[in-house]
Amino acid sequence: MGNALPVTRAENFAEWYQAVVRGADLAETSPVRGCMVIKPWGWGIWERIQADLDRRLKETGHENCYFPLFIPMSFIAKEAEHVEGFAKEMAIVTHHRLKTVDGQLQVDPDAELEEPLIVRPTSETIIGDAFQRWIHSYRDLPLLVNQWANVVRWEMRPRLFLRTTEFLWQEGHTAHAREVDAIEETLRMLELYRTFAEDVLAMPVIAGEKSENERFPGAVNTYSIEAMMQDGKALQSGTSHYLGTHFAKAQNIKYQTADGGIALCHTTSWGVSTRLIGGVIMTHGDDDGLRLPPAIAPHQIVVLPILHGKPEDAEVLKYTEALVSQLMDDKTLGRHVRVHLDKKPAKAVEKRWNWIRRGAPIIAEVGGRDAAAGQVTFLRRDQVYRGNGKANLQSLERSEFIGRCARTLDEIQEVLLAEARARRNALIVDGINDLNGLKQYFGNDSEEPGAEVKGWVRAGWSRPTGTGFQALENQLKTHALTVRNAPLEQPANPGRCIFTGENAIEQILIARAY
Amino acid sequence: MGNALPVTRAENFAEWYQAVVRGADLAETSPVRGCMVIKPWGWGIWERIQADLDRRLKETGHENCYFPLFIPMSFIAKEAEHVEGFAKEMAIVTHHRLKTVDGQLQVDPDAELEEPLIVRPTSETIIGDAFQRWIHSYRDLPLLVNQWANVVRWEMRPRLFLRTTEFLWQEGHTAHAREVDAIEETLRMLELYRTFAEDVLAMPVIAGEKSENERFPGAVNTYSIEAMMQDGKALQSGTSHYLGTHFAKAQNIKYQTADGGIALCHTTSWGVSTRLIGGVIMTHGDDDGLRLPPAIAPHQIVVLPILHGKPEDAEVLKYTEALVSQLMDDKTLGRHVRVHLDKKPAKAVEKRWNWIRRGAPIIAEVGGRDAAAGQVTFLRRDQVYRGNGKANLQSLERSEFIGRCARTLDEIQEVLLAEARARRNALIVDGINDLNGLKQYFGNDSEEPGAEVKGWVRAGWSRPTGTGFQALENQLKTHALTVRNAPLEQPANPGRCIFTGENAIEQILIARAY
Repeated sequence: MGNALPVTRAENFAEWYQAVVRGADLAETSPVRGCMVIKPWGWGIWERIQADLDRRLKETGHENCYFPLFIPMSFIAKEAEHVEGFAKEMAIVTHHRLKTVDGQLQVDPDAELEEPLIVRPTSETIIGDAFQRWIHSYRDLPLLVNQWANVVRWEMRPRLFLRTTEFLWQEGHTAHAREVDAIEETLRMLELYRTFAEDVLAMPVIAGEKSENERFPGAVNTYSIEAMMQDGKALQSGTSHYLGTHFAKAQNIKYQTADGGIALCHTTSWGVSTRLIGGVIMTHGDDDGLRLPPAIAPHQIVVLPILHGKPEDAEVLKYTEALVSQLMDDKTLGRHVRVHLDKKPAKAVEKRWNWIRRGAPIIAEVGGRDAAAGQVTFLRRDQVYRGNGKANLQSLERSEFIGRCARTLDEIQEVLLAEARARRNALIVDGINDLNGLKQYFGNDSEEPGAEVKGWVRAGWSRPTGTGFQALENQLKTHALTVRNAPLEQPANPGRCIFTGENAIEQILIARAY
Repeated sequence: MGNALPVTRAENFAEWYQAVVRGADLAETSPVRGCMVIKPWGWGIWERIQADLDRRLKETGHENCYFPLFIPMSFIAKEAEHVEGFAKEMAIVTHHRLKTVDGQLQVDPDAELEEPLIVRPTSETIIGDAFQRWIHSYRDLPLLVNQWANVVRWEMRPRLFLRTTEFLWQEGHTAHAREVDAIEETLRMLELYRTFAEDVLAMPVIAGEKSENERFPGAVNTYSIEAMMQDGKALQSGTSHYLGTHFAKAQNIKYQTADGGIALCHTTSWGVSTRLIGGVIMTHGDDDGLRLPPAIAPHQIVVLPILHGKPEDAEVLKYTEALVSQLMDDKTLGRHVRVHLDKKPAKAVEKRWNWIRRGAPIIAEVGGRDAAAGQVTFLRRDQVYRGNGKANLQSLERSEFIGRCARTLDEIQEVLLAEARARRNALIVDGINDLNGLKQYFGNDSEEPGAEVKGWVRAGWSRPTGTGFQALENQLKTHALTVRNAPLEQPANPGRCIFTGENAIEQILIARAY
């Protein structure tokens, strides 16, 4: 049996990625350069991500707000490093009216704005302005807000979900009285992202601190969670920043202390985006398409009645409708399960492969014989084939199928995480001692289709800084390598520095990355 | 006892509106002209609106997607009337980079876009482009999509929630094979909005068709739901448009018919926005602030432990915590109720009035005596005062309080709707027979604070069109009056035309409006 996609991961990982996005009907490019259209199945995944993460953010005391899409140019200019980091890639609104001249629509030169507006690439400056108004005393702290929003960063090499000019995200922004509280918040949110990625996306990640050159513009420390894709490259999947008092200074975010003094707030920011969907695809997808962790599958169980356009169809429809309503009753499985009945007039085998490409965790196919025998025939998306290469269809007595569904969904969630974790762990390489060894290991920087998967190198470093470190990073870059992060979890003995041979301070992960 | 706001509705309705928004901490103006910051309590209301409406949209077969924020200028130009209607009020992106020159940040003249991008004021053109790609055959129809998004229309006279440059909304877009199906969809969504407004927002509305001058740019028919605010003015609270084949022609949205021919699709679009929150304020607010229908209250019950900073507080806290967890247990009330325990260190009476201003439906205050007696003292937001002007606090034995809560919330929802409906019905005036009578009834067009509330006039009309009707509407405008809509529900005999004295074809509503 062939695969459901025109290209396999081994043949060409980049093309395979596009084929999954297309085959699962997740999203497509739009006529607006770098901007995507997210289609219902892709949006459904984002809705699940939003709902689960939003609950976690609320449970940790954060409140949702909404801040303006536009940021005055002068705001961006306030924090010097922030300007430097973001000025290069923004959408700038300069006019507020079009007019028709000689039948041609054009920008009205008389409607130029006094001050250009930036479409938010991130909202530290506009939210900082609100914080400055909202915070008066230590009693107002901590201030913990979040927003779900669209942001725009001009992208020259867009890729669906991974790097788009417009993307959707949540951005958390907090202000604290003490440095220690702000640092604790920064790390708390990093840990929240880590557990969210693993528990919900079934995507194992390593949480750690970014190098100084990879810090968010204006941050004191930037932390990330890094996931390994099936081609061995890293995907930075979420970041959390301790901003110190940089933004507070630039924007006058002060508070009255308990003893009547005035002090600057310590602020943080953190976010994850629609990029996570790209991570899910490249973590769990196979040569038949997407495999969705049940926690974020818009439909967890898809029921396909096998119809032949004959009177007997009525019996099958009745049987599947009863099955679906039983599965959807919260009481049946002790929890809410998302079930979809696909009655579209198409061949059963076409519908099966459509849902395999989309990654529905359980696909049940019910024909006349099943209905007559009171059974359900089904396929698990994590076990599509038998040893002999045939579709791994199983049949169970109806009540047994129902009774097992919740457990099966949990199992699929666990299997996907365990598979991804085992693969990731096997591809983290130790024992490479110097830059030459590193270069040899990774070879040249080409992304040849079908190249051997190299994964990540874990090595000690002596935490070099400044121009010395910049020179080292430039060397890495010529091999398309980057320092991903210094993991929070460290061994007792980090070994020797891969750059200098000196005693290492800690270990880092070096990898190619998206 | 005085009121909780610095200004009453009767004194100055416009200032009262601002005072409610401020007092309930819903939103504030931002440094970006016309754009608002939505604060947690305001956002919580919007989340409830979104969740309920989203469920209704999905139940009626619509799927959520997401389309780009930016629309190429050439797309806007495709539908002639659409250009005319929207070209005047849009944010236009012309550049994609800033640069620093002599220490000053400025727009980089070398980074001008080849084609200006419009920040979407509405998405017919960009979604139509996708429809044109997605629709091939009659089997692809109807295509029913919705998106939740931010949109931008340049506003010269912004007012929080009611008219802001950036606002949030849902916009539905559908394509159908037959005209009759598209018209049915247009009216189905109008009816969905009507029931949503009444059942969830407790805001009675009249559904009807807009006059030809008030149609959406490019529409064949535009329908609206109109709500009456407490100052008698109308608020257009949602619209639904039948677009005919106008956009299909402009964008080549065609399908293969069952017999192999090619035909244009019939399309619709419809939306409601954050403006609804302004409608809720002006429908239900009183001189003490907001009153929220329980269906959209972020907290339906707020429990205030009365604390004195003494050891006895522990007992009160324990009692209220147990009360809250009992109320929040889905089994207690047979459904999920949103309960909030406000432990902030502030005076009980201050906290009470804070929640009155915010409009929490039930406010429970529990002190040491309540805890000792096993009772709960509470206030209903729709019954703040006794006849003698004192706070209408009631005490109930704890289990009786709990047992009644769900019913009380339902009652408050009903009371708010009934009050608003009675007020609205009393302020719809019949029997005005001509333009002079109309002018006399409404008086001059000034919005004097404290002026008598006039409401709406219901009158027949002969459905004039073209320049004749334009002249009539201009006359109305000099008195700040507009035709709101021709209600779908019509009497058997619509009487005589208020403009011509001829036999009327139907009745219309004439009013001042937001």
